[in-house]
Amino acid sequence: MQILRTVDADDLEDIAIGGAILGTGGGGDPYIGKLMAQQAIKKHGPVRLIDIAELPDDGLVVPVCMMGAPTVMTEKIPQGDELMNAFRQLEQLLGRKIDAVLCGEAGGINSTTPFVVAAASGLPLVDGDGMGRAYPELQMVTFTMHGVSATPMVLCDDKGNSLVLDTISNAWTERLARAATVEMGGSALLAFYAMDGATAKKAVVRGTLSLCAQLGATLRDTRAAHGEPVAAIANLLDAKTIFHGRVRDIERRTVGGFARGTAQFEGVEEWAGHSFNLEFQNEFLIARRDDQVLVTTPDLITVLDAESGVPVTADSLRYGLRLKALAFASTPQWRTPAGIALVGPRYFGYDIDYSPFAATA
Amino acid sequence: MQILRTVDADDLEDIAIGGAILGTGGGGDPYIGKLMAQQAIKKHGPVRLIDIAELPDDGLVVPVCMMGAPTVMTEKIPQGDELMNAFRQLEQLLGRKIDAVLCGEAGGINSTTPFVVAAASGLPLVDGDGMGRAYPELQMVTFTMHGVSATPMVLCDDKGNSLVLDTISNAWTERLARAATVEMGGSALLAFYAMDGATAKKAVVRGTLSLCAQLGATLRDTRAAHGEPVAAIANLLDAKTIFHGRVRDIERRTVGGFARGTAQFEGVEEWAGHSFNLEFQNEFLIARRDDQVLVTTPDLITVLDAESGVPVTADSLRYGLRLKALAFASTPQWRTPAGIALVGPRYFGYDIDYSPFAATA
Repeated sequence: MQILRTVDADDLEDIAIGGAILGTGGGGDPYIGKLMAQQAIKKHGPVRLIDIAELPDDGLVVPVCMMGAPTVMTEKIPQGDELMNAFRQLEQLLGRKIDAVLCGEAGGINSTTPFVVAAASGLPLVDGDGMGRAYPELQMVTFTMHGVSATPMVLCDDKGNSLVLDTISNAWTERLARAATVEMGGSALLAFYAMDGATAKKAVVRGTLSLCAQLGATLRDTRAAHGEPVAAIANLLDAKTIFHGRVRDIERRTVGGFARGTAQFEGVEEWAGHSFNLEFQNEFLIARRDDQVLVTTPDLITVLDAESGVPVTADSLRYGLRLKALAFASTPQWRTPAGIALVGPRYFGYDIDYSPFAATA
Repeated sequence: MQILRTVDADDLEDIAIGGAILGTGGGGDPYIGKLMAQQAIKKHGPVRLIDIAELPDDGLVVPVCMMGAPTVMTEKIPQGDELMNAFRQLEQLLGRKIDAVLCGEAGGINSTTPFVVAAASGLPLVDGDGMGRAYPELQMVTFTMHGVSATPMVLCDDKGNSLVLDTISNAWTERLARAATVEMGGSALLAFYAMDGATAKKAVVRGTLSLCAQLGATLRDTRAAHGEPVAAIANLLDAKTIFHGRVRDIERRTVGGFARGTAQFEGVEEWAGHSFNLEFQNEFLIARRDDQVLVTTPDLITVLDAESGVPVTADSLRYGLRLKALAFASTPQWRTPAGIALVGPRYFGYDIDYSPFAATA
């Protein structure tokens, strides 16, 4: 994989597209995060990426992100300032200088929001994240499995309200931050999971920003060359195309700030006569083909426009769209018993055991 | 009025009863607060009361209270420790020593909870509060009218979670603290509205703890002497008995953590043939007799057992109970345009203008 060392405003186009692919249908609108990040880079200059190995063991790294339901976020564009407020407030609370910024998730909007803080602070951004994808809840990060506390956490809204949380578990952080975010109008900005370099070296999913950039560039180049974008993306991700079909039906509901639902597809071309459905809770979590479970969380299910290869979120699924679904293995950290307990199908309420997906099967 | 200077565990019996009378049907179960306060006084010794005039202008005073819906509180008895945690965390945050403790409300459970902190800290408790009664929302205190910010506020639960809030208005403090309290299981402990002595001298409703103690003592003495407890309470409060009847019907619902509803009464004896109803949102807010509005918030409506004079909460209204309703004027601070905007009938959603109640009318 190509390693990215500096990110300017143009590079963010690719990273946002790549983030939407790793976003597996959720993670928020990457367009908003991209705009915020581009604005910050134009004002403050390019962002330097580092591998987590470059951070000293006693260095301090802090992830930042936006919290909220994608369906709400699109109506309410936050300013980058509140993210910086949350970051600086946490720094003050910790009583020591932060050495690097980190992404909580690499999928969706939060693959780009940390660039705002990196640009404005002049600090390097770690090329990695805590998921290797997107997930809907705050405790669903590899950091949790390494014993890192989400708190002290600072949560700010766009009106000027802020909260400092100190909780007994990361699941409690999620509960309390979610309640506050809903009350604040549906989205909030966070700084949390402060950790030292030694811990981060074990916990971080490495290289995800470079992967995002490469996904975006591959899509762009293949389209320019009139190639086959979906095949090119699948190849880069070591993913398998598990369906090709049209959206036939979508059932949605918003529950506790999450966009939940099921999308039904009917097959076309090589999959004519077959059915396919996706269960989502912000992200696509379960894929069934002909009523058989094929892929489950934590493995990744992403949906692309069949022609252009442009990623499609659960939120923008519409009747009649012709799409291809890709599946690929999650980071090995998620495939452990601790990982499955945190983000496996049963956590999300599905009566299904996790069975590792292999692209070659 | 008799002025109380020191409060021991026995005095709390009277104060809790008096708090339930000023609680106007809400304010939480005074029994729980009393138990917590008695426990603290037995462990740490009596609490010294001061008049707000005794606090230097540059002294720092901090109210503490419990937040939550009475219907939930009765199932979940908090320990005094969390209240002390909230208090000490706020002190640390403010970076200076607190000189005195204060009641947010004098009605219901929060007439006694501040004794826990006063006993454990050895600090004096101000003989006064921010309501002269009970109200359901955090911004509904005279402090708000004097420009005192509820934040920085520390909110703790009984599990070990804590939040620090910093908001743009006291109404926002209420919204965010309410959401957190609901998420925490229905009750939480708070320290907030830190203010200097100069401000407190203008904002505090004075003498409410002495009044509570005197109400409790009057009820106790009158019952012991086989006198007329309701008349004695009415006399002490300069209140008018506005109805005597039996509960005929109660409609209740819990909305956003509040116990709301309407109670219907049918008259007995001097009020035979007349009807009466009370609208409550935790507290009794509107009294109608024969379908005419008679009393509205901020003036006080309290309901006593017709025989014993024991105060009855909205929560414990039951079919067939024979009760007397008293009404009396609120503190003059609430009767200003700013007060009516904060706690008048329209704020609570009733299409009724406030008309000052006079016991002599």
